[in-house]
Amino acid sequence: MSMHSTENIQHIALGLEYKGTRYRGWQRQPEVPSVQQAVENALSSVANEPIEVLCAGRTDAGVHASGQVVHFDSRAQRPLSAWVMGANANLPPDISVTWAQVVPEHFHARFSALARRYRYVIYNDPIRPAHLADEVTWNHRPLNIEQMRKASRCLLGRHDFSAFRASGCQAKSPIKQIEHLQLLKFGQFIVLDIQADAFLHHMVRNIAGVLMSIGSGYKPVDWASEVLQGRQRKAGGITAHPHGLYLVRVYYPSEFALPQRYLGPHFLSALA
Amino acid sequence: MSMHSTENIQHIALGLEYKGTRYRGWQRQPEVPSVQQAVENALSSVANEPIEVLCAGRTDAGVHASGQVVHFDSRAQRPLSAWVMGANANLPPDISVTWAQVVPEHFHARFSALARRYRYVIYNDPIRPAHLADEVTWNHRPLNIEQMRKASRCLLGRHDFSAFRASGCQAKSPIKQIEHLQLLKFGQFIVLDIQADAFLHHMVRNIAGVLMSIGSGYKPVDWASEVLQGRQRKAGGITAHPHGLYLVRVYYPSEFALPQRYLGPHFLSALA
Repeated sequence: MSMHSTENIQHIALGLEYKGTRYRGWQRQPEVPSVQQAVENALSSVANEPIEVLCAGRTDAGVHASGQVVHFDSRAQRPLSAWVMGANANLPPDISVTWAQVVPEHFHARFSALARRYRYVIYNDPIRPAHLADEVTWNHRPLNIEQMRKASRCLLGRHDFSAFRASGCQAKSPIKQIEHLQLLKFGQFIVLDIQADAFLHHMVRNIAGVLMSIGSGYKPVDWASEVLQGRQRKAGGITAHPHGLYLVRVYYPSEFALPQRYLGPHFLSALA
Repeated sequence: MSMHSTENIQHIALGLEYKGTRYRGWQRQPEVPSVQQAVENALSSVANEPIEVLCAGRTDAGVHASGQVVHFDSRAQRPLSAWVMGANANLPPDISVTWAQVVPEHFHARFSALARRYRYVIYNDPIRPAHLADEVTWNHRPLNIEQMRKASRCLLGRHDFSAFRASGCQAKSPIKQIEHLQLLKFGQFIVLDIQADAFLHHMVRNIAGVLMSIGSGYKPVDWASEVLQGRQRKAGGITAHPHGLYLVRVYYPSEFALPQRYLGPHFLSALA
């Protein structure tokens, strides 16, 4: 008779923040560093058994998170503080667990999510930044934020975002709903703050690329709408660098009552 | 007859920002990476002759700068933009030249300086930060900023700062004048913003250490004044980590009309 009946299995959700620079993205792959592998290693040490996690949004290589959410199952009985502090003691300095909570069995980090919010952080200055070189996207051309704001308005709401979709994107439908899209200015920083029910692969970086082309005067304001209407990725210019991209929050039904921290990244937290 | 008479020598001042993490401090030393060496290598490439620079404030290992100032002499006739852009093309990503200006022969980056301003950036949160791990000092104990402010008042003005002086400090006198000292709060960040005519070795980090001990409740508010009056380094507790320290500005007589950028580091520039 095993002591480990299914009744003893805990279903746990965790909040994560990470700097994606050193990792080949979220997803575990053989022989390359991934955020998922690092998190699973740390949690497996705490649990003293192998742990596998599922995340809300698989981030690409070089992309960061301040509000990633994962879930996992474990037979190990640990206080929630052990999942946070124990994992953090076993994680490298560029990944942190920010909270842990027991969730009902039907909670799924990805499929229960109602919406995701990303921030794309642009450092707009003629001089290359010596600080945060891997954590912001440097654009040395003066960006007109008002033009970027005007251009962005056509993207709000429910649209076919095929023009902003990477060729390898595996989403079933290109139709997504952008619920919130704002351009914030903060000293030399311009932040694209964007929320949708879900995002296509490279969607935020492709939107950031179009808006930077308009902000720098390479393209007229109307170009964003033309690109959207055309539904052709190749008409949408370049995909912006991953450095400036952060998954900042995932929204779930209130029944789960998951903790919410400040909207990251923390060095822009006054913008929340 | 050489074309290179002394009349052809230009005396040039540069602004620098750098992330100090990868360097064993400002000062050139054999066989270890230094900011000075990296800057001299880049400028020597631009000048096509060996360049030596002198700085306003020699920062320690791991300490950063957003407003360091240096001067150098060169026979090379280059437009000022070449000293900035050419050097930046030759510098690693964690060092940038921010401006260049021709200065009169009597300008000296160190001896002409009237005052220096530093910022010590504390990230105050129970969770270890995954972002900016090398660029802020993490303190997980809740800090009472009002107690820190009260404690800091006794340090303003002209005092014997022997209690805040590293044992190896080579300054002629321990008497310095703190002209400005403020504690700023910005989301999870607490920033010690401090200006003095000059600083003793480790002076800002020792002040930060005393104020954090008071802010976390380990020591009473009066302890800062006791430490100052006692003039004994060993009574002043621990030297705070270098990660959070930035040389943000050097002040010169207005006759030199040197450019001033925002008060760094840039991710806190809204605090200027």
